[in-house]
Amino acid sequence: MVRVLIVSASPREYGYVRRASEFARRVATEVMGEEASWIDLYNYRIHPCVGCVSDNVKACYRPCPIDDDWERIADMVEGSDALILVTPIYWYNVSTPMKCFIDRLTTFENAIFVEGRSRLEGKVAAFAAIGNDVGAIAVIQNLMIVLNSMGAVIPPWALAYHTSEESPLRSEKFVLDMANVVSCSVLMARALKGLGIPREWYRADREFVERVTKIAEEVDREFDEMLYGS
Amino acid sequence: MVRVLIVSASPREYGYVRRASEFARRVATEVMGEEASWIDLYNYRIHPCVGCVSDNVKACYRPCPIDDDWERIADMVEGSDALILVTPIYWYNVSTPMKCFIDRLTTFENAIFVEGRSRLEGKVAAFAAIGNDVGAIAVIQNLMIVLNSMGAVIPPWALAYHTSEESPLRSEKFVLDMANVVSCSVLMARALKGLGIPREWYRADREFVERVTKIAEEVDREFDEMLYGS
Amino acid sequence: MVRVLIVSASPREYGYVRRASEFARRVATEVMGEEASWIDLYNYRIHPCVGCVSDNVKACYRPCPIDDDWERIADMVEGSDALILVTPIYWYNVSTPMKCFIDRLTTFENAIFVEGRSRLEGKVAAFAAIGNDVGAIAVIQNLMIVLNSMGAVIPPWALAYHTSEESPLRSEKFVLDMANVVSCSVLMARALKGLGIPREWYRADREFVERVTKIAEEVDREFDEMLYGS
Amino acid sequence: MVRVLIVSASPREYGYVRRASEFARRVATEVMGEEASWIDLYNYRIHPCVGCVSDNVKACYRPCPIDDDWERIADMVEGSDALILVTPIYWYNVSTPMKCFIDRLTTFENAIFVEGRSRLEGKVAAFAAIGNDVGAIAVIQNLMIVLNSMGAVIPPWALAYHTSEESPLRSEKFVLDMANVVSCSVLMARALKGLGIPREWYRADREFVERVTKIAEEVDREFDEMLYGS
Repeated sequence: MVRVLIVSASPREYGYVRRASEFARRVATEVMGEEASWIDLYNYRIHPCVGCVSDNVKACYRPCPIDDDWERIADMVEGSDALILVTPIYWYNVSTPMKCFIDRLTTFENAIFVEGRSRLEGKVAAFAAIGNDVGAIAVIQNLMIVLNSMGAVIPPWALAYHTSEESPLRSEKFVLDMANVVSCSVLMARALKGLGIPREWYRADREFVERVTKIAEEVDREFDEMLYGS
Repeated sequence: MVRVLIVSASPREYGYVRRASEFARRVATEVMGEEASWIDLYNYRIHPCVGCVSDNVKACYRPCPIDDDWERIADMVEGSDALILVTPIYWYNVSTPMKCFIDRLTTFENAIFVEGRSRLEGKVAAFAAIGNDVGAIAVIQNLMIVLNSMGAVIPPWALAYHTSEESPLRSEKFVLDMANVVSCSVLMARALKGLGIPREWYRADREFVERVTKIAEEVDREFDEMLYGS
Repeated sequence: MVRVLIVSASPREYGYVRRASEFARRVATEVMGEEASWIDLYNYRIHPCVGCVSDNVKACYRPCPIDDDWERIADMVEGSDALILVTPIYWYNVSTPMKCFIDRLTTFENAIFVEGRSRLEGKVAAFAAIGNDVGAIAVIQNLMIVLNSMGAVIPPWALAYHTSEESPLRSEKFVLDMANVVSCSVLMARALKGLGIPREWYRADREFVERVTKIAEEVDREFDEMLYGS
Repeated sequence: MVRVLIVSASPREYGYVRRASEFARRVATEVMGEEASWIDLYNYRIHPCVGCVSDNVKACYRPCPIDDDWERIADMVEGSDALILVTPIYWYNVSTPMKCFIDRLTTFENAIFVEGRSRLEGKVAAFAAIGNDVGAIAVIQNLMIVLNSMGAVIPPWALAYHTSEESPLRSEKFVLDMANVVSCSVLMARALKGLGIPREWYRADREFVERVTKIAEEVDREFDEMLYGS
């Protein structure tokens, strides 16, 4: 069994970032048959990192001394095999709470200096960025190199993006890429747990396309109903 | 008269980012003879942007509806001719409050859709990034393209960086580059106000080097005294 | 009088990058009334930089010792007040000849170590990136920080991008942004030559929009005719 | 058995980039016991991509129609399980021949549209960037997201960098990070071939450190002798 954690950071309760996140959760559970949770950082209180590590390299460690919801989030990260970050594109970069999340993950990476190993080492990480306009690659390249620098594995095809005003769940390309972000993350996490080595990664076979397209339509409709009423 | 606003975002009260910021302030006033203020965002309450603009393009405008210290900061931005951002390097990116500041500046840029013009258009912007390790260019290139996309002018030599464990104010290269970030910003702001066109930009003449080196030493010493006692 | 040099780097003779470049040239001459030239680097032989500067900091200087067309291009750069780089997006980055151009510009920047000043200092630089898909900001942020690090001024609104399969010259947004890249570059070059200080930068007034739209249509049609016959 | 291909792109025959590359080759063979080759792109004729794919999506495929040394390089890429790219930092970006290599790899990635699958899918990719000054992360984040977008797996700790004027092979940090770039790439390639799942990735145990430090010293000395005579 592989556990997937989807972390988004959008203020818009029924917006595209959250739709894409719920879509990812369902692909992980319904298509891949794994455990998956999704949290949005705007529902948590997380304060900016105060850089304890600059004074004492061993001071940055779990539990983080800052008094907020970090440790609840950190428990979920700790318990996951694959982490999928879904961010809106704000000024060619992540949203503020996603930046905050990244900085606070130092409590995992900096375990190097306390217990000899990053607590993210060997976890799988993958990414999605959603906006009305350009900037997706600028955002994702930062997230990718950061997570890799913390010890995470980046599976093939670990990025999905959407940069137009329509719902990403109505874009064939986004739906398939996002489903593969989930699928490749799960395949990689399984491989690293001894649960089988994939011979192929990106899936575009008809069965897969039909299932994920149906899920995308369902999620989009449900969110529309929550937003506009049915 | 040109007004310079230096905005830093470091949690470390006597750290390198704040030393560099105070150095910049003194260069602007003592060497360039202009007005300058410095604020650090960790001393203000600023909440993450909630993306009103996605619902209504005219909703994002001053005053920002979020109830925090933004409008005080915004008044200072509004009153400045040149904006110098000084950030620590956290995971090859800005610190969280600096990211928050950038997102909230949308209230300036988005004036395009309310009054027909960005309130940052024609202001001058320049940058410094300070850390123990790599990532300075990754950080600054994001800040530079963002401020330019909001309408700011980027003067020549608008970047200074320091990526080692020693004080930046003891690095000849950083001190000279940072002093030129200030000097070139002032020269550009003056030119755009009709106060004279520079024939040269980067200064490395002995008089300038000596003055700014002396200021750097003073600031470093004062901060050491505040940190360690005298 | 201000001289604008447009440098593109696309292998496709009647492709979008070259259309955008010719459009920029006509805006500079017909709308702004300045001198402008356009060259495409695929029409020149320019070899990769061999890094002489690492052996001897004074060795990298004009004329560059590499025997190719560089010095002809360099003369044009030297003679320009504003440089507009137009690149296709190849793997979230510039095309190879544009990268080569950037590296060879070291002969200008490195004049710092020979004659005390970069030969790009105070010139104006602006950018456009064109592709079918994402990556525009990743490309332009690199070009912007590089040219600024060589001493160039970046005027307000110094970027235009287009990331879809249609002609950029049929996109209202691209046409207006690209025209403003040219216009703001000219306004800045004029200001720095004492030819007047702009009170406003981005133009979206009807007269301007109509003129540049007409030019865009003409260029697009002419290129279609050259490509398909009339 | 796992095959590692190291690809560098530096004009300096006995320079730091090539030293790091030869070091990587020896770690792969002597420490990890695998097959490894190293090529430097400055020893090959490779012309800029001409973008055939824009006219006909199936036209970009092996063999590439451009008449140069690409197919010899491509055979080596095809035959490798792990690809390690070692680049100098030229203007916060790769060198021109490395950019050319990336663009020509489209013949592998674009197999998606001819045979249904990228020929880089599931290969392992990792990176090193070496320069006198900043820019390492800006370079590597581009390479990492590009290779991942072509289907490559990025193993944990897939980056090493060196940004000072001393030899990287005399930097403890670089030597250990570069050795781990090789080691993690091999571990990942083995895992994906069913040759065992690593329980730990980054190695800093004394035995490993001593072996790779000794190799680094040997390589550095050999290159010094070739450069200066013995």
